[in-house]
Amino acid sequence: MNKFAMYGKLTAHPGQRDALVQLMLEAADQLDAMEGCELYIINVSEEDPNVVWVTELWRDAEAHAASLKNEYVLALIQSCRPLIAGVEPVKLRPVGGKGL
Amino acid sequence: MNKFAMYGKLTAHPGQRDALVQLMLEAADQLDAMEGCELYIINVSEEDPNVVWVTELWRDAEAHAASLKNEYVLALIQSCRPLIAGVEPVKLRPVGGKGL
Repeated sequence: MNKFAMYGKLTAHPGQRDALVQLMLEAADQLDAMEGCELYIINVSEEDPNVVWVTELWRDAEAHAASLKNEYVLALIQSCRPLIAGVEPVKLRPVGGKGL
Repeated sequence: MNKFAMYGKLTAHPGQRDALVQLMLEAADQLDAMEGCELYIINVSEEDPNVVWVTELWRDAEAHAASLKNEYVLALIQSCRPLIAGVEPVKLRPVGGKGL
């Protein structure tokens, strides 16, 4: 199992969460076609009105690393930056289960 | 979008993580056939050697609630309990993206 998984916790500035979600959904449309991207699910927290959680699963670490060099993804990160107060990645190693 | 999503953070007692993962993988085999279960991915943390994260996605909250009344699932929760020091659910509302 060489798959790469992470959760990305993005805390928006107050009032900016929905704008951030909108940008992320546009990113997801692009990632849909991206080699090696298996899951890129955007969730909002039920507990904190400023928090977005992204569930990512990639074929391997290389596919994830390559996505971060993609021109479109880099531009998207730039456009999200002013909306984001904090980023907290949770790095995972998937071991099994349904959906892998 | 009525889907139900959560991350379950399970902290094992020291040295018990792999035993816990093994039990969870057996659970996942059962959930594979369970009505309304779309994702049930077991991950270990890359940052904390005692932590397991479960990525759950269900058709709706009702399907998730029903799973918690399933006899097999209840027995499994009982068998995991002695291995677990703490549980921290992260409740989510999925809004879109790849894999939904």
